[in-house]
Amino acid sequence: MVEMRKAVIIGAGMTPVGEHWKLALRDLAVEALLNAMEDAGVDKVDSLYVGNMASGSFVEQENLGALIADWAGLGNIPAVKIEAACASGGAAVQEGVKAVLSGLEDVVAVVGVEKMTDAWPSDATRYLAYAADAEWELFHGASFVALNALIMRHYMKTYGYTEEDLALFAVNAHANGAKNPYAMFKKPIKVETVLKSPYIADPLKLFDASPVCDGAAAVIITTPEKAKELGVPKEKWVEVAGMARAIDTINLANREDLLTLKAAKIAAEKAYKMAGVEPKDIDFFEVHDAFTIMAALSLEALGVAKKGEGAKLAREGQIAIDGDYPIQTMGGLKSRGHPVGATGVYQTVEAVLQLRGEAPNQVPDAEVGLTQNIGGTGSNITVNILRRV
Amino acid sequence: MVEMRKAVIIGAGMTPVGEHWKLALRDLAVEALLNAMEDAGVDKVDSLYVGNMASGSFVEQENLGALIADWAGLGNIPAVKIEAACASGGAAVQEGVKAVLSGLEDVVAVVGVEKMTDAWPSDATRYLAYAADAEWELFHGASFVALNALIMRHYMKTYGYTEEDLALFAVNAHANGAKNPYAMFKKPIKVETVLKSPYIADPLKLFDASPVCDGAAAVIITTPEKAKELGVPKEKWVEVAGMARAIDTINLANREDLLTLKAAKIAAEKAYKMAGVEPKDIDFFEVHDAFTIMAALSLEALGVAKKGEGAKLAREGQIAIDGDYPIQTMGGLKSRGHPVGATGVYQTVEAVLQLRGEAPNQVPDAEVGLTQNIGGTGSNITVNILRRV
Repeated sequence: MVEMRKAVIIGAGMTPVGEHWKLALRDLAVEALLNAMEDAGVDKVDSLYVGNMASGSFVEQENLGALIADWAGLGNIPAVKIEAACASGGAAVQEGVKAVLSGLEDVVAVVGVEKMTDAWPSDATRYLAYAADAEWELFHGASFVALNALIMRHYMKTYGYTEEDLALFAVNAHANGAKNPYAMFKKPIKVETVLKSPYIADPLKLFDASPVCDGAAAVIITTPEKAKELGVPKEKWVEVAGMARAIDTINLANREDLLTLKAAKIAAEKAYKMAGVEPKDIDFFEVHDAFTIMAALSLEALGVAKKGEGAKLAREGQIAIDGDYPIQTMGGLKSRGHPVGATGVYQTVEAVLQLRGEAPNQVPDAEVGLTQNIGGTGSNITVNILRRV
Repeated sequence: MVEMRKAVIIGAGMTPVGEHWKLALRDLAVEALLNAMEDAGVDKVDSLYVGNMASGSFVEQENLGALIADWAGLGNIPAVKIEAACASGGAAVQEGVKAVLSGLEDVVAVVGVEKMTDAWPSDATRYLAYAADAEWELFHGASFVALNALIMRHYMKTYGYTEEDLALFAVNAHANGAKNPYAMFKKPIKVETVLKSPYIADPLKLFDASPVCDGAAAVIITTPEKAKELGVPKEKWVEVAGMARAIDTINLANREDLLTLKAAKIAAEKAYKMAGVEPKDIDFFEVHDAFTIMAALSLEALGVAKKGEGAKLAREGQIAIDGDYPIQTMGGLKSRGHPVGATGVYQTVEAVLQLRGEAPNQVPDAEVGLTQNIGGTGSNITVNILRRV
């Protein structure tokens, strides 16, 4: 049996998330990328992976690998875009790790980017829905928000939760995001703020949902041997200890159970096994709260809560920084923002900062962190487990 | 030093290329995928890579990994889409190989697919142009055809070639495609056919260009050890002996030299080195003749012809099946068709058939074949070298 290489993240960078009217997709990506390279202390990389969901629709640009590597001045390296809907960022990190493990590349850059605000808001909603089944869901008029509202209603009805219960996820996200200088919304909110916000698809309200926004985040991945050779101080290394992803049926109608994120469950089990850890060993969880309901279901699929009890954790205050299971430590998708294809890389950058002890809302002595990134209504999910070296 | 794993292709499948009015993107992809799996004799795979350029624009569907793995009944496996513009297929094959080399996955499926005819023809031209620089080329009105016409004019003027000379690449492609049951255009043409076809961007004529079309092609990749374990007869194995890719500036204005496909040159040199071969050892070349000019420039970048002499090879008859450097043995992009994101995988399938001795236009005793797939106007190029085991 051939011995496997290992992968460590040695650099991380990002742009603030927001409405970047004066910056193009390439500007955002290059800024995040150069920040990550500066952080790692490298001035070149062997290849580039770009996490992005829908640049063709949002800014009429494909060929993002060439575009970004070219504009970042990286030379004639290999560069491609990875698309897994809203999980494109998490998947791009995994492909970057695989490239390192393959032995073909030693230092790999991963950048996640999405420029959403150049599209009309109604078009943004349309493009996001491409993550669902165009022919069996969207054709019939279902928007992405509507599909999530359906799941939320079913969850509330099945387990007796209220809109207040789910609002707590948004309140927690904003409490943490308020201290993150890179977050889009730096304002704490109350349960009432969520409840008073308009319904966008009953029972889902505006403040249950993450915003349309722009942003880019990047990491530099290499082997421990190469990190040493490059002289990157060991305090900066973060090991990619476990990673996996799985798909589920793309349309909701074909799911065995609307309330189980089966893909997350499968991916998490594999990732835990690979890292040799259990949910109780994880110090913080960056989960995919594109809608509050997804945070609840994610905690259940990751084995942190029993089935039907994800929202209970929020009610009990266990998801706060000082709780047993801190989530969204830098604001999550709700408050930091959700530039779709970039989100999984933002989660990774935030986990790196936590594990280095450099986070604005530091989880005390964090050693292991988990990032979970969802594409579609749970149809393509990545789970990565990062560990302090 | 950790010893590297090896990768072999054990199955190949495709759909005919054409205007598939009654099939959706998912139907085409699933058909090619199941054909490849049947060919390999496997009923499951560990993961799926989808090569596709612009499904969001063409059919309003992203999340192709989940969509196709779901509809092919592959279960909850990892699945993503790889985008490198028109080189998405070639890049997807490379990512599939990397996944196998990484040690994380043993049996990987790669499918390239594009469904272009659901869009209005004028929109198809627009979406294809997303491979160029949206802000510095398209914004000013350049279409993808116009950019290629510019290169063609410069080539003709610099080296004294005529439209007839370049037409020979189309004639050769059709001569071979005529015998390929999967080709879109199964009709031989003459130089006059090309010359009489309308200019679409002077000096580039309709018959210098590949068609808008639909299609899907797939391969199954594994290690030699696993292929043995699966009981795949050795006659079916084709080794991925070398592979590399490189980018160049996304917009033409930034190129040092309009007439050198620098990315192809760099990728080819790496791939030759990895495979331990030289151009003269290659029995056939499947190059990216999206436009006839690209075939000429590719032969030069691959080291088959000297700079400025690519078109001379066509004039001398060296690119025919019985020539020294057979190209487009199954019709190339011009005659087989160019369903963009699928093209690189079609090239791979065709090379596999040649190396197994199963091609309709068999290159006698073919042992080593090269596929070269271009994204943009040369901004993202993959080179793969396949070898009979």
